Parts: sequence; structure tokens; C-alpha cells
Amino acid sequence: MAVAPETAGGPLAGILVLDLTRVLAGPFAAMQLLDLGARVVKIERPGTGDDARHIGPFVDGASVYFASVNRGKESIALDLKDPRDLALFERLLAKADVLLENYRGGTMEKLGLGWDVLARRHPRLVYAAVSGFGHSGPYAQKPAYDMVVQAMGGIMSLTGHPGGPATRVGTSIGDLAAGLFCATGILAALYDRKSTGRGQKVDVSMLDCQVAFLENAIARYFATGTVPGPLGSRHPSIAPFAAFRAGDGALVIAAGNDELFRRLTEILALPEAAADPRFVSNASRTEHAEALAEILERALARGTVADWLARLEAAGIPCGPINSVADVVADPQVRARNMIVTADGGPLGPFPVAGNPMKLSAHADPATRGRVPALDADRARILAELGISGE
Amino acid sequence: MAVAPETAGGPLAGILVLDLTRVLAGPFAAMQLLDLGARVVKIERPGTGDDARHIGPFVDGASVYFASVNRGKESIALDLKDPRDLALFERLLAKADVLLENYRGGTMEKLGLGWDVLARRHPRLVYAAVSGFGHSGPYAQKPAYDMVVQAMGGIMSLTGHPGGPATRVGTSIGDLAAGLFCATGILAALYDRKSTGRGQKVDVSMLDCQVAFLENAIARYFATGTVPGPLGSRHPSIAPFAAFRAGDGALVIAAGNDELFRRLTEILALPEAAADPRFVSNASRTEHAEALAEILERALARGTVADWLARLEAAGIPCGPINSVADVVADPQVRARNMIVTADGGPLGPFPVAGNPMKLSAHADPATRGRVPALDADRARILAELGISGE
Repeated sequence: MAVAPETAGGPLAGILVLDLTRVLAGPFAAMQLLDLGARVVKIERPGTGDDARHIGPFVDGASVYFASVNRGKESIALDLKDPRDLALFERLLAKADVLLENYRGGTMEKLGLGWDVLARRHPRLVYAAVSGFGHSGPYAQKPAYDMVVQAMGGIMSLTGHPGGPATRVGTSIGDLAAGLFCATGILAALYDRKSTGRGQKVDVSMLDCQVAFLENAIARYFATGTVPGPLGSRHPSIAPFAAFRAGDGALVIAAGNDELFRRLTEILALPEAAADPRFVSNASRTEHAEALAEILERALARGTVADWLARLEAAGIPCGPINSVADVVADPQVRARNMIVTADGGPLGPFPVAGNPMKLSAHADPATRGRVPALDADRARILAELGISGE
Repeated sequence: MAVAPETAGGPLAGILVLDLTRVLAGPFAAMQLLDLGARVVKIERPGTGDDARHIGPFVDGASVYFASVNRGKESIALDLKDPRDLALFERLLAKADVLLENYRGGTMEKLGLGWDVLARRHPRLVYAAVSGFGHSGPYAQKPAYDMVVQAMGGIMSLTGHPGGPATRVGTSIGDLAAGLFCATGILAALYDRKSTGRGQKVDVSMLDCQVAFLENAIARYFATGTVPGPLGSRHPSIAPFAAFRAGDGALVIAAGNDELFRRLTEILALPEAAADPRFVSNASRTEHAEALAEILERALARGTVADWLARLEAAGIPCGPINSVADVVADPQVRARNMIVTADGGPLGPFPVAGNPMKLSAHADPATRGRVPALDADRARILAELGISGE
């Protein structure tokens, strides 16, 4: 299949992804493949399309939520329960390298599109499923959204302030982690196919991905028997490594080893803290993190965030401001790295979206991204490519 | 180079990764490649090794923090500033497929190991760098840790409760996102190499990855001009989609569309909410999310978390408990999906760690993982493989 111009280039040039997914985890996975050069054709439900088209905010009736993860993809509306559309889908499948879906476990089988059927019919196809709980185990048929796996996967139990109310991670980490692991698994399967000539199934569970993101909390629990709880803004095993209040706001300081801590006490003029036996090692500083924070904040109160950042930076101590989204998108480093790119928003006009953080020396990193597709916008072209004159 | 037995199998079987990275982002990237079948040799600083060896908690003097992301890797201690060790490293490089490093920008150049030099000497090598800010732009030389990029990348401005103190995401999302994007970029480069025969550089910035994880917050900001803030436990564009208090604790409910909301009002016996014009659509429910939460919580207060979860589940409404880490590691689904596996902890004994969430149909997903390497534990074997008898 010809590669659409907006996705030319990249390691995945020539790869065709058929994407049945909706909302975020699957579309985020497909966007990674697109940004690596693949062509992504969204197969959407006729009439309503991807649920994300109906999630706000809206500009002139178009969802910017949808725009932000679907720029550069193509859209064709097919009803997989309609035999004619299903036949069209099968013809597309015969040309596809990757099929991506995020139905509940069992749905593809009911459509006659289960992996056992597809693997026989399309032996080179990589079939990737991203679902709430995966295609095996007692919860395989249960529905899930980001919020559910953030809660069930433990990250909410670690986020927030001790004794405070439940706190969600401020972005959809349940979807994003799963989408990125799914893209990684698809790349591994495509790599494998180069040697074996055969596709395989990639089964990614959002809950599993949250477990993979629990990081050292699992080790801490098994090592100590203590159930880890939320710690506000501080790190569980490193100190001082947190947000601290200064004269006019908060900043973060990450003095991750003894030498950085020594330099920090010099800048804050705290020789007594440097000599305090409670603060002699990282382990001991972590144990007394609250007492240490009080001492540091008393000193930090005497200056502004901007002043302290300048002095800490000059001393090579990792530190930073707590940026708002407005700060982030204007940040000179973010801009220099081409991390805010412009999508063709169609009726929205040129539209700023996040860029691709995988900077590859052999490929361009364009400052623009493709069009945000209207529902079914690419039907005629896709059917023509199949040698079908349309309906 | 022979593949060590613990990493046999997987799409990356036969791939040798030399890993100069420390602490979390780089080691997490290398762990993904290991779980996909690659052999990972850690090159550590003589004497102290990976900084993570000194981050607690400790069991019998060994860091479980280190164990959790380094199981199955091999270790050799080399001082790249010592010409003899550098020569050994160069001999290893000649056999390697991937070099992974997480120094500050410019460090590899000072060691004579910059990409321009390596690319000429080892044209098939994939060189991956994961750093705080990437190898270009005004911050390229600045140091960073997870805490710094969580703050500078905007996710802290979205996490927590309105008006409350700064809140860190409870796991090291700054490191984990960068590690996973880095692994994805490496796979893309290895895939590319299958066609071109050449390696390339993969330059991943932790800050860039936070921008990529801001998700729709960027679109919301540009669409509305309003700077997004923290929203406690609720989703910015979907309602009801949050944690809610019931009689004996909190649960999450994610009624992501009109039909799910209708069913929820039935179960909670809230016909007046179903008919309320403020709650007629998702956009309108989001606008009145706080008023809606009050009504829902008044009804939820009449039952326990367990009761409500059973009733909501029976009605197919996505919901879940807010699990602690202890709950997560005991969860039957997590166990059924082999997401808690056992590493050979060496002196720690068998040690539970997170499994691999990329379930590939063509490869086994073993319930055990390799040994946690002591510093320099694999020197003799690695040198013997190079035909060097050792020091």
C-alpha cells in the first residue's frame, strides 16, 4: 500500500497499521508507530466514530482531545457486524502489517476475528490487543478505564499526601503506560518477523502495565513487609529529593547523593545540617526526611524560587521550578527539542500538539504533523487503493 | 557472543546490550530489552558500581531497589578513564548491538566515545542516550533526576488537590516514561538496521517524555487558554470518572458515557440525577462534576465499598477498589498474568519482582528471572569470551 505523504520516512515506513482502538491507550500506541513512520488507518464505527470525538474540550464542535492523539492518521468508517463492511475489512487486513484493537477480551472472537482465525489467514500479521485486564485470567472479560487501573494497580495508593484524600495521577497514566508498552511489544514482534517471517499476538493489559510501573514499591513491600503509602512530594528512598517551599513559592531539589547534599548545605549556609549525624548518609537522611525538610525550608524561606534556582544550578545541584502546562509549552528546551509540533487540525486550523520524544539520528523530526481526520474522511482513497470504486 | 541462559528466547535473542546507565531510567530501558530476550552487560564504576546499589531499602546489605530493575543482567566493573579498561570496553563494543548510556550531554565525547566517533568505528551499533534534557538545546549540559523533570515537565502541576501542596506522582514516572520511550526507540533502530545494515543514535530526554505524557493537557491549554490545574481524583474531561467515598472507604467509578451514567443512576436509585439537565451529557456532567460527586457520594454512603463494587460490576460499570501495593501483588488477575515473578536475588534469596507486561504469543513468559548481579560478578566469563585471560 502506498505510504501517505504525511507519514513518509521513519524506521516503520511501509508498515500499514489497521487501528480499531478508541479513546486513549490504543490510539496512543498507534501514534507512536505513526511517529516512527508507519501508516495508520483508523477503522471507526459509522455514525459516532471513536468515542474520543465526543470528549471535550471542543473547538467549533471538534474535539481537541481527539485531535491530540489522532493527528496524521486516516479514517474509514466500517461496521464490522455488517457482512459487506467485514469483507472490506478482510481485504484491508490482507494488506496490513499490524492490527491493533482494544475491545474487551472475547469481542474479536465473536466477530470471527479471533487470533486463532487471523493467524491462519494472515500468518505475517502482528495482532496487538490492549485491554483493561488482558486476554487471560479471571478479569479477562471485565471493562476498565484509566481511572480503574490507576486505582487497582496501586499507583493511587502511592500518590497524594499522607492522611489526605485519594489522588489520581494528573494524566491518564493507566492508558499511556499501556499504549507505550503496546507499541514496544509491536516493534518487538515486527523485529521478530524480520527473522521468522511470521507475525504473533501481543496481549497488553493496562493493569499489568501499572504493576510494571510500581517500580521499587514492590521491592520495598517484600523487603520490609510495610505497605508503602503516599509521601506527598518526596521520594521514598532518597533525601533531600522533594518539593520545598521558598520565599515566594515552591521548587524541587534533588540532591541524590552525599556530595550534592554537602554542596546544598553550603549554599543554604547550613553547616550544622552538614554535621548533623541524622543527615550523614542518604539512608539516614531518608529516615529523617521530615526534620531535614523543615531545616531546609527555614533557610529557603529567605530567598525567592528564582534566586535559589540560579544558585543551585550554578553549583550543579539538580533542581527545577514546578512548571504549569503554560510554562512547559513555552520552555526554551522543550521548544529547542521540537516537542511542541503543529498538526493540521482541519477545521481547527494549525494546532499545537506534543512531538515525538524518540529522536533518531537517521530520520527527520518534522515540526509539523499530519491532518486530524474527520470521520470516514479517507474512505474513497482507501477503497480506490483496494481497487474498489466505492459505494 | 553466547547468550546467557537466563535470557535465552524472546525476539531479541542474540542481541548484546552494553549498559553504562545508573539508577532508574537507563536500567529500566535495559530491563525491557532483557525481558524481550537480549543479553544485558552492565559496565559499572569499579568500587561503588551503579548508584542504585546504595539506595535503600537494604536486605543483608544488598539494595532491593537495585535488585528490582537489574535482575538477570551481568556486571563487569570498568573505569572508562583508565586506558586499559577503555581498551577492554572497545573490544566489547565491537561485539555489541546496542550501547546505552545516561551521562549528561558531552560526557561520552570527553571519554572519546561520542556518537560521531563510534558511528565510524562501529557502523552497526545502535547508540542510545537517555538524559535529563537530551543532547541538544540550551539545557543539554544540565543534570536532572526524576523529581526535577516531574516538576519541570508539568505533571506535578496536574497532580494533587486544588489549593493543596505540591504532589509528586507516587512512582518515578520521569524515569519510567523515559526508559520505556528509550527501549521503544532502540527497537525501532534495531528494526531499521535489519533493512539498512546500519545503526543510529537514539537521543531521549526525560523532559521530552514528560511532555509526551501530558496528553490532552496541552490540547486543553491551547484550545481554552486556561492553564490546567490539579483536579484531585477526577478526570478533566469525563464525569463521573473519579474516586468517591462510600460507607467504609473510597472506590473509583468510571462511567465514561451516557449509557453507563444511566445505569449508575439506576443502581444508586437516583432517578432525579438521571433527569437533571446538568447531567444530560458528558460535557455537562464534567462542568458540574463537583455537584454530581456530592449527589453520588450521598447515595454511596449507604453501602460498603465491597457491596457497591459487586453491584456496579454486575451492571458492567467500570469500577474498582483503590488497592494498596499489598493488594496488588496478591490480586488474582495480577498473579494469573504472571506479573509477579521471582528473581534469583543471590544473597537475597528468591526475590519477587514485577514481570513483563508485553505478552508475546511466540515466546515463553517465564515465572522466574535471572540473578541479581553482584558488582563485577561476571568479569571472568566476559573476559574469557573476549579471549582475555583476566587480570
